Amino acid sequence: MTGSTAELYPPERVARVREATAAAGLGALLLTPGPDLRYVTGYDAIQLERLTCLVVPAAGDPFLVVPRLELAAAQASPAGRLNMEMVAWDETDDPFALVASRLPAGVDRVAVADRMWAVMALRFRAALPGAEQVPAGQVLRGLRMRKSPAEVAALREAGAAIDRVHRRVPELLRPGRTEREVGRDIAEAILAEGHATVDFVIVGSGPNAASPHHELSDRVIEPGDPVVVDIGGAMPSGYCSDETRTYCVGAPPADFLAYYEVLREAQRAACAAVRPGVTPESVDAAARDLIAAAGFGEFFVHRTGHGIGLETHEEPYIVAGNTEPLAAGMAFSVEPGIYPGAHGARIEDIVVCTEDGHESMNAVDRALVVID
Amino acid sequence: MTGSTAELYPPERVARVREATAAAGLGALLLTPGPDLRYVTGYDAIQLERLTCLVVPAAGDPFLVVPRLELAAAQASPAGRLNMEMVAWDETDDPFALVASRLPAGVDRVAVADRMWAVMALRFRAALPGAEQVPAGQVLRGLRMRKSPAEVAALREAGAAIDRVHRRVPELLRPGRTEREVGRDIAEAILAEGHATVDFVIVGSGPNAASPHHELSDRVIEPGDPVVVDIGGAMPSGYCSDETRTYCVGAPPADFLAYYEVLREAQRAACAAVRPGVTPESVDAAARDLIAAAGFGEFFVHRTGHGIGLETHEEPYIVAGNTEPLAAGMAFSVEPGIYPGAHGARIEDIVVCTEDGHESMNAVDRALVVID
Repeated sequence: MTGSTAELYPPERVARVREATAAAGLGALLLTPGPDLRYVTGYDAIQLERLTCLVVPAAGDPFLVVPRLELAAAQASPAGRLNMEMVAWDETDDPFALVASRLPAGVDRVAVADRMWAVMALRFRAALPGAEQVPAGQVLRGLRMRKSPAEVAALREAGAAIDRVHRRVPELLRPGRTEREVGRDIAEAILAEGHATVDFVIVGSGPNAASPHHELSDRVIEPGDPVVVDIGGAMPSGYCSDETRTYCVGAPPADFLAYYEVLREAQRAACAAVRPGVTPESVDAAARDLIAAAGFGEFFVHRTGHGIGLETHEEPYIVAGNTEPLAAGMAFSVEPGIYPGAHGARIEDIVVCTEDGHESMNAVDRALVVID
Repeated sequence: MTGSTAELYPPERVARVREATAAAGLGALLLTPGPDLRYVTGYDAIQLERLTCLVVPAAGDPFLVVPRLELAAAQASPAGRLNMEMVAWDETDDPFALVASRLPAGVDRVAVADRMWAVMALRFRAALPGAEQVPAGQVLRGLRMRKSPAEVAALREAGAAIDRVHRRVPELLRPGRTEREVGRDIAEAILAEGHATVDFVIVGSGPNAASPHHELSDRVIEPGDPVVVDIGGAMPSGYCSDETRTYCVGAPPADFLAYYEVLREAQRAACAAVRPGVTPESVDAAARDLIAAAGFGEFFVHRTGHGIGLETHEEPYIVAGNTEPLAAGMAFSVEPGIYPGAHGARIEDIVVCTEDGHESMNAVDRALVVID
């Protein structure tokens, strides 16, 4: 892991989050396992049916509610560094009532983790009937969107790892193999190159390259196929990678070459548009206008990008209508695509907005790789 | 995959779910990606920030709302067999308003998928301000708890796959290796033996064996260590495995042997208690009473088991207080444990309640395996 746990997940973050909770006029923040909890405490707990919940009251000390049989694991986790009370509950206790009993009476608004399971949010609603619920993102988005130097270092490490996987793709992508066979090898390489988990493996060949969220199929890769390879995982640090390159197995079709260079130029233009103060929608437009001017606008059917950090997709979204200006530390994908139907292409890098432009987390060449 | 998609995910299930929705007095059922959606349609969609949602109105035809860039993937999925309208939305549309606009005015209660992200449930609350939300489990639990013959066959296949992994554990569990090294090899074996995903790998050695939800650490396994190995994954069918055996690397400590046979007898007694009409709490008691009578009651700190199917943990829970009688087709773990502190042990099988008793999905011997 790049940097220490204390750098990536600074212990003082809980206090900052408590201030933000109070500033937002909320009585408490309730975080079940997931990226919000990990961001605040460093604790990478697994979400299961037993309630684990960080409770951050606007006034008073934060505490972590845990099933008794996970108490030892919670104490051994990075949350154990935080000098925070851990409240264990037993198999026949009601942990939602337990949380409610420890909050001040009259709490009228609480924030719940964006990814909290609805079944748990509804239990909290019943236990705190007077409390309106809002998404925790309202409190945390401003903090989570601007990555610290340690977080940027973690994204850089993730970017280098997925670069190493892409450099191995040409040896895996062979005519006669199925997408699924290639995908299995790529998944192994994602782990072998240092990721803790494989988050997704898209190998879209021929017409499947034109379905942006295609994953893997039993289609056999044929000579002349363009192949979109969009892959990513999470590092032991928790931070994610996500990188797309388009390959061609054998000589590319002429009508594919007609748009690949347009796409490459559009991706470069969108990256070049990134700097503090610029809006996400203008970064989107930088790619989209160029593709439209070349006559391929109808084939670019998705937004230009998404934020990335502890989640593969998070704020800010690089999409028409998002006018909240970029700031230094924001990290997101720049990934225009052109999908005419018989084939398609996408190029994606993760970039971080810097004081005067951008830094790319990925370094693999964006020129079309023709695999002979 | 055992059996066909049509057997595991019968197309008529949507109609049955619609009837259950109406019978529960709900206006509609809203299912985002996760086990509820997969159970009803067979569609194994990934939950991300763009809304995918099966809408089952109590009156009217069900429809699937999907991001346009996932339309092709949705049509190619098992949901494509269902002759159901797919409503695609574009990047700048509001899909929550879209769902609301297609529901009858005056819908006052809707069920949301148990695992729907809270941020989405709150968007639905805003889009349908007059509609109280309840968990979809209220509609689906009765159906999901009783496995069909095809589902039992899928669990049998999963049980045989994890049995094959446990049979390889003795060659991996060697003194001088760390839990993490052994765990990595087990994860590879879980995939190699036919699972599509690794859901969890617990290798708890020595004192870590006494922490029931310990996962992996860098502790070096030493001669004389009892080691709890609790592992599972999901098969391509979607159905899960989960099996625990306790091993001993070299000669077991005398105080360990004192309780291992008690545990083995307790696990056997709980399995033998399973038949239709019996309550889950009495199955729990069958194990617990025996362990308590032997003087180890305080060291059995968790419930006896959990249901299993498309989720590793689902209803029915085998726990004190659960008095809803077992019925044929219910599938769950039977996994008592004894954790005195210096070491611990757990034995777990998945069993299915049959017409006159139980069938175990796991066949690996429950006798202590001493690895020389």
